[in-house]
Amino acid sequence: MDRQELIEQLAVPTEAKIVMIVMDGLGGSIHPDKKQTELEASVHPNLDALAQVSACGVQDPVASGITPGSGPGHLGLFGYNPIRYLIGRGLLDTVGIDVPLTPQDLTARGNFATLDLDKGVLTDRRAGRIPTEENIRLCKKLSGLKIDGTEILVQPVKEHRVSIIFRGEGLSDFLTDADPQKEGVPPIPAKTLKNEASKSAEVVNRFLEECRNRLKGETRANCLLLRGFSKMVNLPSFSKIYKLDPAAIALYPMYRGLARLVGMTILDSKEQTLAGEFETLKENWNKFNFFFLHFKATDSAGEDGNFEKKVKAIEEMDHQIEKLRAMDPDVIVVSGDHSTPCAFSGHSWHPVPTIIYSKKAHYRGPERFTEYQCAKEGFLGRISSTEIMPLALANAGKLLKYGA
Amino acid sequence: MDRQELIEQLAVPTEAKIVMIVMDGLGGSIHPDKKQTELEASVHPNLDALAQVSACGVQDPVASGITPGSGPGHLGLFGYNPIRYLIGRGLLDTVGIDVPLTPQDLTARGNFATLDLDKGVLTDRRAGRIPTEENIRLCKKLSGLKIDGTEILVQPVKEHRVSIIFRGEGLSDFLTDADPQKEGVPPIPAKTLKNEASKSAEVVNRFLEECRNRLKGETRANCLLLRGFSKMVNLPSFSKIYKLDPAAIALYPMYRGLARLVGMTILDSKEQTLAGEFETLKENWNKFNFFFLHFKATDSAGEDGNFEKKVKAIEEMDHQIEKLRAMDPDVIVVSGDHSTPCAFSGHSWHPVPTIIYSKKAHYRGPERFTEYQCAKEGFLGRISSTEIMPLALANAGKLLKYGA
Repeated sequence: MDRQELIEQLAVPTEAKIVMIVMDGLGGSIHPDKKQTELEASVHPNLDALAQVSACGVQDPVASGITPGSGPGHLGLFGYNPIRYLIGRGLLDTVGIDVPLTPQDLTARGNFATLDLDKGVLTDRRAGRIPTEENIRLCKKLSGLKIDGTEILVQPVKEHRVSIIFRGEGLSDFLTDADPQKEGVPPIPAKTLKNEASKSAEVVNRFLEECRNRLKGETRANCLLLRGFSKMVNLPSFSKIYKLDPAAIALYPMYRGLARLVGMTILDSKEQTLAGEFETLKENWNKFNFFFLHFKATDSAGEDGNFEKKVKAIEEMDHQIEKLRAMDPDVIVVSGDHSTPCAFSGHSWHPVPTIIYSKKAHYRGPERFTEYQCAKEGFLGRISSTEIMPLALANAGKLLKYGA
Repeated sequence: MDRQELIEQLAVPTEAKIVMIVMDGLGGSIHPDKKQTELEASVHPNLDALAQVSACGVQDPVASGITPGSGPGHLGLFGYNPIRYLIGRGLLDTVGIDVPLTPQDLTARGNFATLDLDKGVLTDRRAGRIPTEENIRLCKKLSGLKIDGTEILVQPVKEHRVSIIFRGEGLSDFLTDADPQKEGVPPIPAKTLKNEASKSAEVVNRFLEECRNRLKGETRANCLLLRGFSKMVNLPSFSKIYKLDPAAIALYPMYRGLARLVGMTILDSKEQTLAGEFETLKENWNKFNFFFLHFKATDSAGEDGNFEKKVKAIEEMDHQIEKLRAMDPDVIVVSGDHSTPCAFSGHSWHPVPTIIYSKKAHYRGPERFTEYQCAKEGFLGRISSTEIMPLALANAGKLLKYGA
């Protein structure tokens, strides 16, 4: 029995409300020029005040030294073992475009590309980054295809990028990419990695051939490249395990998709800002008892290596914390799906500072909400991301005693 | 998938260099008379300076409360689960005598002993601790034996101790010791613990009989006792898992043997001192990208319960740290395979203070490199020894992102 199965046995439905604030890429590291982390440099009195009365610590999203993508980072926060459940790239892109998936679906991400028909080689893997409107027009050209009983849905993403769903019986994702990843060479077919994928390889390769036929008149986007084949992952239901009625508030499709994969209800915000997200939270306060609220700006600034911008993003969240506390949740979790230090301009393996506030249980936390103070002065010490959901449930009074 | 398998999927080869300094038995405990630990009592400004800018913590070599031998202690540092992989006593002795082993080999450690031929009982289990030269002469007497297709290699170790390799097909280590562990009783044969070991039991017992024949004329060493039967352990290759080209610098055979078991290249030092080991490191700097450097004196002093000597050993290492930093490694790990507090005159279960320095990632560490400061002020907190290799690789930029 893994930890989540134990939690499922002990969780009981109650009225208590849990809010999980995910500040994407929250964790930083000491910047070589600033000699501080982003949290240390920012002014966030409301987060500090919350930390002071909470169980704080740092959490490893996957394991020591592992730099997680957004998929494993969120699965861990939702309490799912991110090594046991892996979400493939194609699936992650596809869940992000708000198309409901079925368990047999095989997904892939794709690029429109330019193929020199005379020489038979790729001259632009991104088809000159065609505008999204052109992408939408081309996807219509490729719609309605059915090969060997398998329906193929082609969805525009952005610029040259598309998302593909192969929907039919007996499909497998043990396939190599149908993308040479470079220019000046011919396109390549998908090959099987296991025998069970032979039907899939045939369907995929016939589909790619048919795409080239249908795109023949196009000057830039006359070819499709596919990669990251992935099947739907069968995640146990969040509401069944935790006996919660969960809702997700996220502006970016990928995070809405991740929440949908575990069965959360996706809420739309009128205003596409953090303030708008908190407005959505307030409006839906009485309808759910678990809210996942995703904030992207901390990660984007970290990816850009923009220290001041990440500091500002933290401060933007801080302003909303007062509103949140006014709603009087029973438990508030503040954490991130991974660290994105500006010093690295990308995700990193550093553990993420974490607050678990409880109305029911009283704690003494660090003076300030920073990486080092959470690690050194937090009552939780260093934990795994998958410990957050059990701790949130316990602190909300939603877990029965284990054993007599 | 265990953690090491995940790391194998994510590790990529790069030029970055990692140095792992193992101060054997590094961890101490508060001495009842001195009211300090050995690290607290020693003056080690270079280790302190390194700790101040590093991710520090304490590590459990195997698990809470477990006092490890050198085998599990080192396997954990190398990233191998020391509960999954156990190196038998016979094997540990044998790998230490620089004899290459094959996967079918059955190894054992042995003693020359004195048998009273009239009464048929053992009178001295150590044959009066015969000098090593006599041991060498006797081993020659026992050489060239072959029983039932199994070759038997008898290697002198020191004084009355020998190491035996049974080399042939179908051998098993499910055998009891052929050593009653006391005097005044007859020698005993090896017995099978599983049916698969019946051939091994027969070979071993016929070998012991033949030894008594060949040793008949000897007055002291006229009998051989065997214990710790162990087969070669099949450890996955260090370089294959981590994509590193590893070298080991160690003066004692056992540690060279442990490094050889995971596939490290063993380097010889001209001068058999710690300074000589660092000289070897410098000479080989451009040939490898991972160095394991073993220092024995901290453990020896701990085993002797000699507090001042252990303090001096720590200070001896401290003098070398400057040289090491001048080589400018990308990552430096300083830890131990277990604790050997002088207060215990032996190994103990206490977690071991640990430094992980990175050129790429910046940290704020404790003022001093001691057990308590690492535990309370280190950013890593308390970790498992098997987390050190993933952290070292991450801090050297050698691990890809996990998941999309």
